[in-house]
Amino acid sequence: MKIATFEKMKVFSPEKMKKVNLFTTERLFCDLYCLEPDQFQKVHAHAGEDKVYTVLEGEGRFQVGEETEIVLAGSSVLAPAGQVHGVTNISGKRLLILVFMAPKPHHG
Amino acid sequence: MKIATFEKMKVFSPEKMKKVNLFTTERLFCDLYCLEPDQFQKVHAHAGEDKVYTVLEGEGRFQVGEETEIVLAGSSVLAPAGQVHGVTNISGKRLLILVFMAPKPHHG
Repeated sequence: MKIATFEKMKVFSPEKMKKVNLFTTERLFCDLYCLEPDQFQKVHAHAGEDKVYTVLEGEGRFQVGEETEIVLAGSSVLAPAGQVHGVTNISGKRLLILVFMAPKPHHG
Repeated sequence: MKIATFEKMKVFSPEKMKKVNLFTTERLFCDLYCLEPDQFQKVHAHAGEDKVYTVLEGEGRFQVGEETEIVLAGSSVLAPAGQVHGVTNISGKRLLILVFMAPKPHHG
């Protein structure tokens, strides 16, 4: 059985946000994003994939479209296809986010 | 911004496991499963959708294919399309699970 335990898989870097892939299938992928204080995922968009961010630890300042909200552990945020989105760790603590995206992006 | 806060949205029933939808798009859906002790999601399969279970609170006995594992809060489990899967709350505490599925099933 494919089981991913966050505590064992999370990786933080002093340089930038780290992404750790938990699962990839033909239909979806699931990552951990690990952010030290002040690290961020740059605001970006993808035309064909929806993303759900779930805050596992800490708090993040999320942008989706033109809106910005502080979201704490215990909540999920939807970033629909085509809308710009990103997250910044403005707290003084580490931020751990579970990210689910569908469908799996096809590059190249 | 579409934000779902688990503590506000979770609903338990003495009768059976409750499912609460958090997000539905053309590409995915995201639910909370809320299980009192001894409640379960019956083992089932779907040919075209992958599912990721994430245990938020408590612990569950998960079956995927022919394997069975106890999974605690802080881990995710992949149930690939076509494989039978289900979960039972064998602990004495409530079990709260975040569920992602892609693509969104099309019924009828």
